[in-house]
Amino acid sequence: MLTAAPRQLLDYPDPRGLEQLRVALAGYLARVRGVVADPGHIVICAGFAHGLAVTCAALRSSGAATLAVEAYGHQAHRGLAQVQGLRLRPLPVDGHGALIGDAAGADAALLTPAHQFPLGVTLHPQRRREAARWGGVVIEDDYDGEFRYDRQPVGALQALAPDHVIYAGTVSKSLVPALRLGWLVVPPRLLDAVAAQLTAGPSGLDQLTLAEFIDSGGYDRQIRRARLAYRRRRDRLAAALHRQGRHVTGIAAGLHAVLELPQADIERQLIARARQRGLALVGLDSFRAPGAGADRAGLVIGYGHPPEHAYTTALARLCAVLDR
Amino acid sequence: MLTAAPRQLLDYPDPRGLEQLRVALAGYLARVRGVVADPGHIVICAGFAHGLAVTCAALRSSGAATLAVEAYGHQAHRGLAQVQGLRLRPLPVDGHGALIGDAAGADAALLTPAHQFPLGVTLHPQRRREAARWGGVVIEDDYDGEFRYDRQPVGALQALAPDHVIYAGTVSKSLVPALRLGWLVVPPRLLDAVAAQLTAGPSGLDQLTLAEFIDSGGYDRQIRRARLAYRRRRDRLAAALHRQGRHVTGIAAGLHAVLELPQADIERQLIARARQRGLALVGLDSFRAPGAGADRAGLVIGYGHPPEHAYTTALARLCAVLDR
Repeated sequence: MLTAAPRQLLDYPDPRGLEQLRVALAGYLARVRGVVADPGHIVICAGFAHGLAVTCAALRSSGAATLAVEAYGHQAHRGLAQVQGLRLRPLPVDGHGALIGDAAGADAALLTPAHQFPLGVTLHPQRRREAARWGGVVIEDDYDGEFRYDRQPVGALQALAPDHVIYAGTVSKSLVPALRLGWLVVPPRLLDAVAAQLTAGPSGLDQLTLAEFIDSGGYDRQIRRARLAYRRRRDRLAAALHRQGRHVTGIAAGLHAVLELPQADIERQLIARARQRGLALVGLDSFRAPGAGADRAGLVIGYGHPPEHAYTTALARLCAVLDR
Repeated sequence: MLTAAPRQLLDYPDPRGLEQLRVALAGYLARVRGVVADPGHIVICAGFAHGLAVTCAALRSSGAATLAVEAYGHQAHRGLAQVQGLRLRPLPVDGHGALIGDAAGADAALLTPAHQFPLGVTLHPQRRREAARWGGVVIEDDYDGEFRYDRQPVGALQALAPDHVIYAGTVSKSLVPALRLGWLVVPPRLLDAVAAQLTAGPSGLDQLTLAEFIDSGGYDRQIRRARLAYRRRRDRLAAALHRQGRHVTGIAAGLHAVLELPQADIERQLIARARQRGLALVGLDSFRAPGAGADRAGLVIGYGHPPEHAYTTALARLCAVLDR
């Protein structure tokens, strides 16, 4: 591969990313996620956080002031938007996903349509249409779109409104986060503003490697292997908690489940008890946006993380903590 | 190496960079460039442009409004600062380097003290002291500090004022630009503002590889090999032009030389003649900051770039273009 690589590959790369990778991704994303993607509208970034920071900076420089965010999500992502000068407005999330109607007046919205993080609900078709028709820019965080287990994958929202949606994906779930490799599919009118913010990206060699991996079919095989492994872990988690009479939700896709709890007190108690036993549990409280109503309690249980040999132990510890 | 790597290496990396690399760089930069560097004050970035963008964004968020820049330098770097919202003020460059005294009122200054890019002058000791005592923040672009040929290397300006100078270096000249690997040494009071802007960086694997390369002594050997190769190219360039009765300047260090010309007309004519012969020459005009006086004419001749087998041809073409 390297012997065939052009010399330019060792030079300062195109800030928008290696052409060969953008072509490979355009085909892959169209095929697997239904994304409407021209290689010229794809930019390569260094993972989702980088893509989000670049997007927020581009929106800010184009006059945007307010970003709507789901009431539950990563605090780190909200923080990045604020560092770029955007005000946040939380959107309630119900059984049909985020209430995009509440975003009126915001300039942009950050959504996880395929599998709300962390609650796990899929955006209802009616809400998807609302989001596609909404006047602002939607940033679609498709963090686990390839890891749907029980039904046909939900396609990307971007397909409904490629002129309004910035689609974001990474290899963090399919390969490893340490590669720091992700992509944005950007509406043409926002492309220059986004490109002006691009000063970092993965190494040219990593970009070429991923391009060849996709072109060879190896990336698809890796996704299938990972999906199977994650699904087995999910099934073991669900079965173990089922034996305790507990029911996890949000597990049609992804690498985490939610165990809803009747009240915040119980969430805090379980987290404290887990900590005493050397298990780090995270509650919904950690994901709640400031200003959002504290209407839910529960635990967010990631099952993608511990290496295979440690998973059985982690699961047994979790069950011991939850055992009443 | 990978078998000994901790599992965390595959996970989301510390945005400030891998601890092992920051420790290795602290030792290396102190030894080779005299930098006052604590590993906790080093942040890893994705090359100089990324480090500069992060620095400018951090300065802007801390209230800075104006960046002084050398009258000659990379337009791309000036553009990055402007994208981050900083106004530019050009500093004249004379035979002693940039006139830092003209930066009064600016909040920060971007300098190339060891080897002004592109003019090639080294900042005079008196000017270095002025820069160290100056009240604003100095961003020290040490792009070729390791490639000094004729005398002892000029140490980093940062050593004189570690509380005021942000030191920036990369592997772009010593290894390859495509690695997108660089570092900043940041005064403690600016560290949080810089860290808040860090959303991208090299992959954990690339960081570990460089750390091991430095620790093993391999990086030092690579620098020596590269310095020798660059020096040979420089000597061939200088000798070839000397045979034509021409004299290049700024060649005590680095990967480029300047051929000063009596007037801008001749600069333009030579560039046009070179283009007709398939040779891309760059004039000082391309590096001049808007608003700076057009007081010099000349060609900037990089000799680091063409692969070894093509260098002889490139040199012959250059001589043919310059032949009167």
